[in-house]
Amino acid sequence: MTTTEAAGLPVSGHEAAPAHTDGDHGHGVHGYHKQKDEHLKRLRRIEGQIRGLQRMVDEDVYCIDILTQVSASTKALQSFALQLLEEHLRHCVADAAVKGGDEIDAKVEEATKAIARMMRT
Amino acid sequence: MTTTEAAGLPVSGHEAAPAHTDGDHGHGVHGYHKQKDEHLKRLRRIEGQIRGLQRMVDEDVYCIDILTQVSASTKALQSFALQLLEEHLRHCVADAAVKGGDEIDAKVEEATKAIARMMRT
Amino acid sequence: MTTTEAAGLPVSGHEAAPAHTDGDHGHGVHGYHKQKDEHLKRLRRIEGQIRGLQRMVDEDVYCIDILTQVSASTKALQSFALQLLEEHLRHCVADAAVKGGDEIDAKVEEATKAIARMMRT
Amino acid sequence: MTTTEAAGLPVSGHEAAPAHTDGDHGHGVHGYHKQKDEHLKRLRRIEGQIRGLQRMVDEDVYCIDILTQVSASTKALQSFALQLLEEHLRHCVADAAVKGGDEIDAKVEEATKAIARMMRT
Repeated sequence: MTTTEAAGLPVSGHEAAPAHTDGDHGHGVHGYHKQKDEHLKRLRRIEGQIRGLQRMVDEDVYCIDILTQVSASTKALQSFALQLLEEHLRHCVADAAVKGGDEIDAKVEEATKAIARMMRT
Repeated sequence: MTTTEAAGLPVSGHEAAPAHTDGDHGHGVHGYHKQKDEHLKRLRRIEGQIRGLQRMVDEDVYCIDILTQVSASTKALQSFALQLLEEHLRHCVADAAVKGGDEIDAKVEEATKAIARMMRT
Repeated sequence: MTTTEAAGLPVSGHEAAPAHTDGDHGHGVHGYHKQKDEHLKRLRRIEGQIRGLQRMVDEDVYCIDILTQVSASTKALQSFALQLLEEHLRHCVADAAVKGGDEIDAKVEEATKAIARMMRT
Repeated sequence: MTTTEAAGLPVSGHEAAPAHTDGDHGHGVHGYHKQKDEHLKRLRRIEGQIRGLQRMVDEDVYCIDILTQVSASTKALQSFALQLLEEHLRHCVADAAVKGGDEIDAKVEEATKAIARMMRT
């Protein structure tokens, strides 16, 4: 159990986490596990946007309007990634720091590379 | 039907298209119309990637591996947008230039704003 | 001298330019030529931001505040690029379309590749 | 002194830090302090690229070639930001995790917002 949970703080910087957030911690599941339902909802919404894009192409909607919708879907994917990353920093990376040893260096390097990939798209 | 289609060539945004690609203009069909199937195939592939992300979240895959997949989907969306944009420039924008008058200014401004939205995501 | 300049209007990429901006074409000057001073002013401002970043690092300013300034400089560079691109589309690309032939295809492909490079950074 | 330093590990995921890296730690200076010289060198190089852009505009270089140079400068700024961020995560964020309490939540949220700003440019 992390000090964070001991302090009973919301686990997401963006909104209060569900009441039972700490429920399955300690089983070695990743930080984002606690917000699984929220993540799945977000992803289903994005899946719907992609299907909407298929309809737009199929109905010969004006190019620029399709591009606007593509930008919206990309933004939604990026914000999903940011939330996942925040939970990762708050749990996996912070835990590695608490554990001590050199795991923190590997974790930070790994996270930075993931951020670089996100920035380059 | 354009010479391009007659020749059965891919009109991929990334290889030069034959000189006169304006065969079916005036029918008010947008440039991307001719590559509808290719676009729909791309979008179905992206839809599959988003469903793959749902499975990954559902199966508690490691955060960083999910982020890698999100970057791949974002890249795929961006490259779809780029191909759509290239066809838009090649057809709608070029046609406005040929027509003359100030439509070209509106078209270029509209395209630039779409590019700005794509860059900001 | 173009009507635009005669009218003393900014040919800013972000407001519609007057109908016929092609006054001085054929002199082989690139579209952005007419806004050289504005571009140089923008770039000098960005150069100042980069020197500001050096001062921040030198004075051990907090990492996050430096990152905020880096984002501002990147945004400024991107918006300079967008204005340059808009003028390029309005002049070089539009001219190729008017000339006819397959130059337009090469110009559009070249512009799309430049946009892709801008998006990937 | 952090466990990381105790373990005598390189402080940067990208290259071994200079021999004296730990020299001035403990004075409460930020992580990046140890790589000040490297950061200043990077920023001076970027400043030179921006001056190069001014020359290109002044000499009426072809728009697309200027855009290529803008992309290179943006990439250089982004990679400077990534290195700064990595050091921030490795020091400020990891230290907050070790200290315990709720500071880690504020630090992670602050870092995530900085990453979001970097991604949106």
